[in-house]
Amino acid sequence: MDSSKREGEAAINIPESKSTKGKNVAHTTTLMAAPPPPRGGWKRGVAIFDFILRISGLVAALAATTTMGTTDETLPFFTQFFQFQASYDDLPAFTFFVVANAIASGYLVLSLPFSIVGIVRPHAAGIKLLLLIFDIAMVAFTAAAAAAAAAIVYLAHNGNSKTNWFAICQQFNDFCQRISGAVVASFIAAVIFIFLVVLSAVSLHRRH
Amino acid sequence: MDSSKREGEAAINIPESKSTKGKNVAHTTTLMAAPPPPRGGWKRGVAIFDFILRISGLVAALAATTTMGTTDETLPFFTQFFQFQASYDDLPAFTFFVVANAIASGYLVLSLPFSIVGIVRPHAAGIKLLLLIFDIAMVAFTAAAAAAAAAIVYLAHNGNSKTNWFAICQQFNDFCQRISGAVVASFIAAVIFIFLVVLSAVSLHRRH
Repeated sequence: MDSSKREGEAAINIPESKSTKGKNVAHTTTLMAAPPPPRGGWKRGVAIFDFILRISGLVAALAATTTMGTTDETLPFFTQFFQFQASYDDLPAFTFFVVANAIASGYLVLSLPFSIVGIVRPHAAGIKLLLLIFDIAMVAFTAAAAAAAAAIVYLAHNGNSKTNWFAICQQFNDFCQRISGAVVASFIAAVIFIFLVVLSAVSLHRRH
Repeated sequence: MDSSKREGEAAINIPESKSTKGKNVAHTTTLMAAPPPPRGGWKRGVAIFDFILRISGLVAALAATTTMGTTDETLPFFTQFFQFQASYDDLPAFTFFVVANAIASGYLVLSLPFSIVGIVRPHAAGIKLLLLIFDIAMVAFTAAAAAAAAAIVYLAHNGNSKTNWFAICQQFNDFCQRISGAVVASFIAAVIFIFLVVLSAVSLHRRH
């Protein structure tokens, strides 16, 4: 496309008489209109929406982390040998869930200043690309965390007769309700990250 | 950036004497180098790499689907009431795993023609954006499937003393080994999808 433009430029310049300088400038300006113009109205809108989505994602990821991390139910009875207590660090899937959502929350906090730069300078594509790459990693992280926890939560609710894994939610009812909420919050965070990636991609695709 | 360029253009044009036309053309050419030129050499390379990655992802996702889907171990002993048999459809997490990886495989097959179009026409950005959006969904799908299955596989290997879920891999050793392999294949597919998204994003970012 550049060579055809260069040819077009040459075709305009060569037959021109030296007195049509102003016209030449006008032509050049028209041809120069193809590269990124400073309109950026909808780009700024996208950048503001990006910022709002990041705040929402932060709320969802923080909710998932804290709900799962602080849930700790001790049953009101205990035998001589056991105290019945359920906490997130009993199951590695839940530990991974807390770690992954904490990482996602931390990343979202760190990404907010870059998102603000995107609002101030809507054509800074390099920052968008950087955020997009990290956002994809976070899609995988939060989706994996939510799915792993969901698999365990399902088991806790329903049990599995084939493997002789019994449902534990009859005993730990409050625990089960809270971790189910945390899983939903993490899925919401994953969906928000997907929207963030799509937004960045559309913004990178349409330059003007 | 555009307005500053236009000013630069004007600054070059105005003080020039009318006899330095050739120099003017040279200047314009240098300034015009910013908009998309038809080099596209590395873009074609990226498109070919995209195609190879899709083939690899297809192999990984298909391997995950078929390994999980065909694993069916019947133990050589049975009681009067039970026949001990382990299959993927005993656990909803494994059923989701098979469905998600089958969807990913099907999508990858359908995306191959579009990837070929990307090789033939490296500057067709619309197709890249479309594939990128679907690729992100597949990142979430395959990562979630792998994580859910991994949570269950971990439980099958190690059990959990707190919840009285016992390890079943002593009995179903072959079953456990095969599903572990399927989980690894699905994680590989997820990583390949992440690379596909990053490649598309970089390709969208750098127009030339």
